Amino acid sequence: MKRIEHHACFGGSQEVWEHASSTLGCSMKFGIYLPKIAIQGERCPVLYWLSGLTCNEQNFITKAGAQRYADDYGLIIVTPDTSPRGDDVPNDPAYDLGQGAGFYLNATQSPWSKHYRMYDYVVDELPVLIEKHFAANEKRSLSGHSMGGHGALTLALRNPKRYCSASAFSPIVAPSQVPWGIKAFTAYLGEDRASWKQYDAVALIHAGHQPPPLLIDQGEADEFLESQLKPELLQEACRVAGYPLEFNRRACYDHSYYFIASLIGEHLKFHAALLK
Amino acid sequence: MKRIEHHACFGGSQEVWEHASSTLGCSMKFGIYLPKIAIQGERCPVLYWLSGLTCNEQNFITKAGAQRYADDYGLIIVTPDTSPRGDDVPNDPAYDLGQGAGFYLNATQSPWSKHYRMYDYVVDELPVLIEKHFAANEKRSLSGHSMGGHGALTLALRNPKRYCSASAFSPIVAPSQVPWGIKAFTAYLGEDRASWKQYDAVALIHAGHQPPPLLIDQGEADEFLESQLKPELLQEACRVAGYPLEFNRRACYDHSYYFIASLIGEHLKFHAALLK
Repeated sequence: MKRIEHHACFGGSQEVWEHASSTLGCSMKFGIYLPKIAIQGERCPVLYWLSGLTCNEQNFITKAGAQRYADDYGLIIVTPDTSPRGDDVPNDPAYDLGQGAGFYLNATQSPWSKHYRMYDYVVDELPVLIEKHFAANEKRSLSGHSMGGHGALTLALRNPKRYCSASAFSPIVAPSQVPWGIKAFTAYLGEDRASWKQYDAVALIHAGHQPPPLLIDQGEADEFLESQLKPELLQEACRVAGYPLEFNRRACYDHSYYFIASLIGEHLKFHAALLK
Repeated sequence: MKRIEHHACFGGSQEVWEHASSTLGCSMKFGIYLPKIAIQGERCPVLYWLSGLTCNEQNFITKAGAQRYADDYGLIIVTPDTSPRGDDVPNDPAYDLGQGAGFYLNATQSPWSKHYRMYDYVVDELPVLIEKHFAANEKRSLSGHSMGGHGALTLALRNPKRYCSASAFSPIVAPSQVPWGIKAFTAYLGEDRASWKQYDAVALIHAGHQPPPLLIDQGEADEFLESQLKPELLQEACRVAGYPLEFNRRACYDHSYYFIASLIGEHLKFHAALLK
């Protein structure tokens, strides 16, 4: 494992590391923000941030301004890439399939199944690495944006004991019911929709999976709100199941990182309280 | 003048506008952050942010996280591009000359002199536009990074009544004495070094120009500190001239936007107090 970037940032250190992933069968990069107290050796809880379509490990660390709050709260933030990468890894010219669009699942279909195992990578391989090489304790939470919000919700729903909390900005909550998800799941998982349910937050809640505490923010000027995100399906599923859900609709905000930057402090505050 | 982007951000609006610049003879873009009170119609002071080499109007608005503080203090932030742009505008393949490297001066040499007039653009054309089309009052300050720090210092030194304050991150303080400046000034201004002095902060101070209140932050891990920045020359010039200078050396910080993001709140606080 090799550190390829490091920058002092809000008293801590924003770093990027590269490593050979056995799960994904390729070289991967991830960002890690270490607050001051982690650099001094104190073991800190870890928030895993899952990015959206087209992103890599850079987008969140350069645009969200989360480091300020992470240092205040003593949180490590780990930002994996959104898919396996490299010339040997299958790809698709579209922005919503292949590299940059891993959907945080384990693919079962050719040609994707060899490398596209982001579910196992984020849930299993990455935390082992982080907890071994950095001053991280075993308290973990998840947050993400759009496709990464889908990742945060589904990983937390399926592993409620591994994660203390989950939050999302503008998440895809029901991928089985929207164009982005239907396209990706058909390619990665095949035509049998029964296999899709394990990666669909709304379907998981209907099936009785109980999440850790959840916070969701959704901008009302989001250009994908009606067609791809449909947060009302998650609200309804939580209502029927009797699960609490802190859900904020935010007037005027769109799908961009300007929205994330504006509210990330609230999300880190939410996670910090549950990670204590 | 046409608005080509707008995003809700920290309660205000981050926008990008495009206009035909008569000074530069080309189409230009600039970013503008309007805090909540400006959107409601209250006239606000304006901080002009001047970016460094290779940047355009996007870098600061996506990476610095300044909007949070700007909304708190009721400041508009205007972020011009760093040079004239377009296929008709002369360019150079190097990153430190031509498009993306205007050095905030009025070029006198061929082929640059027709378009490269960033000094006049930032000092004269842009404020007229801003104060006419937005809820801006006539209080102005300057801040910038690296080449843009050079711009902020020299524009403020030459126009102390137009600007209430100036600040810089990692500025080029004596371009006549360092490789970036010597290369650019030779191309834009010619071999006669007497003409360089009007665009050199240290030379301007030696010539008796008195700045408005100045704040400078410089990272000690900055890879350009010794070769291109040489802040000690500015400190010495201010000491000799008897001008106050708030100068902070910051351990561990490098030349990146992570440094700017970490301290931009301090800079906006400094400007806000002087723009009241």
